[in-house]
Amino acid sequence: MDGMPTQFDPPSGTRDFLAAEFGRRERAFEALRTVFASYGFEPLQTPAFERLDVLLGKYGDEADKLVFKILRRGEHEASGEADLALRYDMTVPLARVAAAYGSQLPTPYKRYAMGPVWRADRPGRGRYREFTQCDIDTLGSTSPLADAEVLCVQHDAMAALGLTDFVMRINSRHVLSGLLEVFAVPAELGAGVLTSLDKLDKMSPADVVDEITGRGLAAPAAAELVRAMTAADATDRIRTALKPSETGTAGLEEVDRLVTLVSGQVPPGRVAFEPRMVRGLSYYTGPIWELTAAGVPGSLCGGGRYDHLIEQLGGPDVPATGSSLGVERVLMLLPDEEGQAGRIDVAVTVLADLAEQSFALAAQARAVGLRASVYLGGSGKLGKQLRWAADEGARWCLIYGTAEREAGTVTVRDLREAEQEAVPAAEVAAYLARKAAAGDV
Amino acid sequence: MDGMPTQFDPPSGTRDFLAAEFGRRERAFEALRTVFASYGFEPLQTPAFERLDVLLGKYGDEADKLVFKILRRGEHEASGEADLALRYDMTVPLARVAAAYGSQLPTPYKRYAMGPVWRADRPGRGRYREFTQCDIDTLGSTSPLADAEVLCVQHDAMAALGLTDFVMRINSRHVLSGLLEVFAVPAELGAGVLTSLDKLDKMSPADVVDEITGRGLAAPAAAELVRAMTAADATDRIRTALKPSETGTAGLEEVDRLVTLVSGQVPPGRVAFEPRMVRGLSYYTGPIWELTAAGVPGSLCGGGRYDHLIEQLGGPDVPATGSSLGVERVLMLLPDEEGQAGRIDVAVTVLADLAEQSFALAAQARAVGLRASVYLGGSGKLGKQLRWAADEGARWCLIYGTAEREAGTVTVRDLREAEQEAVPAAEVAAYLARKAAAGDV
Repeated sequence: MDGMPTQFDPPSGTRDFLAAEFGRRERAFEALRTVFASYGFEPLQTPAFERLDVLLGKYGDEADKLVFKILRRGEHEASGEADLALRYDMTVPLARVAAAYGSQLPTPYKRYAMGPVWRADRPGRGRYREFTQCDIDTLGSTSPLADAEVLCVQHDAMAALGLTDFVMRINSRHVLSGLLEVFAVPAELGAGVLTSLDKLDKMSPADVVDEITGRGLAAPAAAELVRAMTAADATDRIRTALKPSETGTAGLEEVDRLVTLVSGQVPPGRVAFEPRMVRGLSYYTGPIWELTAAGVPGSLCGGGRYDHLIEQLGGPDVPATGSSLGVERVLMLLPDEEGQAGRIDVAVTVLADLAEQSFALAAQARAVGLRASVYLGGSGKLGKQLRWAADEGARWCLIYGTAEREAGTVTVRDLREAEQEAVPAAEVAAYLARKAAAGDV
Repeated sequence: MDGMPTQFDPPSGTRDFLAAEFGRRERAFEALRTVFASYGFEPLQTPAFERLDVLLGKYGDEADKLVFKILRRGEHEASGEADLALRYDMTVPLARVAAAYGSQLPTPYKRYAMGPVWRADRPGRGRYREFTQCDIDTLGSTSPLADAEVLCVQHDAMAALGLTDFVMRINSRHVLSGLLEVFAVPAELGAGVLTSLDKLDKMSPADVVDEITGRGLAAPAAAELVRAMTAADATDRIRTALKPSETGTAGLEEVDRLVTLVSGQVPPGRVAFEPRMVRGLSYYTGPIWELTAAGVPGSLCGGGRYDHLIEQLGGPDVPATGSSLGVERVLMLLPDEEGQAGRIDVAVTVLADLAEQSFALAAQARAVGLRASVYLGGSGKLGKQLRWAADEGARWCLIYGTAEREAGTVTVRDLREAEQEAVPAAEVAAYLARKAAAGDV
């Protein structure tokens, strides 16, 4: 798969999922759906494309450039214009759905959306142009319990996938606003300063101070701000520093309440206040969170409260909170599954002129709940057919040839134990059912 | 939903699936996947789009006009040219995959593909621009058992969806070739004559005779052909007529063998030779079939053997047989499900300052396998919260207020039976688990 792309490869940045990988992904998705449903989140599926005007201009020019646009059709194709575009995320469709179905939706509307989104990003390791996005959101509730619920869902989702070595870092936009206030950052510099602070994970404190100074903040103020954020006792320092700020104090209360609510439901040490976590997206209006795992750069999940975004995206003015799970990244972390399950449980030979009988034997195996198929190749040789049975990963091979016909039996060969038994033809289904019930499959 | 489209509707010909409809569809898809797997068919998922040159020119100009093309990106966007296109069916991607992964795939390669395809058709009742296609195909086997297996899968798939009132009509391209031969239809008129015969379901015999005559066949020959096809004893007549043709005789043997193999596995009366069934697509090379239901125009499933198509589509030269299931049409036939399941099993009130305790109660209910959520609204009134619990379809509502706190109990209200019980707080989870195990959910 590492060679030059060929004409038969899928388009750049997309993938074909053959059975093993498809199965691995589906099992993970199913585990997630079960967790979402356990909290009363319901599924929503929207079309792959939206009208162009619904999609464009929502997240800025950079995002617009990543949108796959669909050419108009028929006589309009020659215009070279687009009228539709592949969905870029799950939030714009959610806003449209909230506007379209308003009163038909429950209040609050707790939904999950899991499916492909498309972005014309430069493909790279773990970065695709077609990838699965998995969002959960609650519209219509201002309750901190709604935020806490979303976080617990994320926690349980990770746990359901078998991940345990992660932490949930919580902050609030109000804490960040309070910080800008007490460190006297001018309003017009606020967003830029936060963007720089968000880089403390990747850049040295000195470089961040330089960047902030470059944005126009006085050097001493910049240094003091970064020192407060990076000190060993940063959390305490910031709690103290925020005391004079009403917004900052409210933000701390918001964070503490969320940490308390979630802590009660998850193993110790999984949740913490993280004052320097900013999250890039400017639309958050309250608590924000990220889920990070040891040794994995970036975050596995992220989200927060975004009370005005749905309206900005064209939907109704409803409070909202939600979280996005980086499924593709999480899937990369999961261990490979051991020993792939066979395609079938029961393989049936086709020998002599006994195809009809073999066909019927396979049906009998299916009737007792086993996956079964007859040999579809052209060889009449038993050895070749047994090789096929092994390739299919079958546990049993039913051999029915002229000798068996005369004896009124079927030879049931156990491919795992490499032993075989002559079973009366009329009893084969019951025999297999008994073996399968004994956990032999 | 029948009014004028609004700016919030999904794009023309596409649909939003809210929870109830999504669930109904998913349950049907899951039933189909189980049937496919029981025969050893494995899943394949390819990207939503393919390179334009992979898609275009495969099924003719009419089909090409229905392809949704994706505009080039970045500096190339202004060119108005497309380089990608949304998949139009599941067969072209299968051919590409067969070429790309050849030896990594099992032999034969039995795969199913179930997912959206996109066609810029004029939307209408039951006709969408984004719809689910469901194909099963076997590549690499010339065995008639492979054809029979595909037909049995289709049968079981319909049965799994609860449909019983259908028949499977079988014919063969060789029968049709034999007919053209014995009725002395010139080679260059053959395809056209077959297309006309295919309309005998919708047009009067006289009109079909006219159409065939219009194509250039002599009127007496046309009349004789149509009479043979529409007579009460058409099957016998055609069997007799085909005797002189080697191709026709081989075709009859092919049909009879398939009918015999399938008849052994399905209830009586479900399979029949149908000499006038043509199937529009010219790429079939052997047996062809259709599944039709009483009172439903057109077919629910259709397929056949197409031994050269994969190569024509750019894949390797492998024999192939397969069938496509009209999922959208079948879904329309299924009865509405009774009484939608609730979103949650357990609703938990949030009263006084007891949010944390309520949050923990919901987690306890989930821990015993129930779907549970706390009230996320702003009202402190029990009546309003109980109304929410009922709207959610919850079976139980856990009420925890100051009285319960003092008593060390939780009031468990059974919303179906409209009765309630005070349960010691420490025993709530076990109580609910017991009730649920008793089949009360």
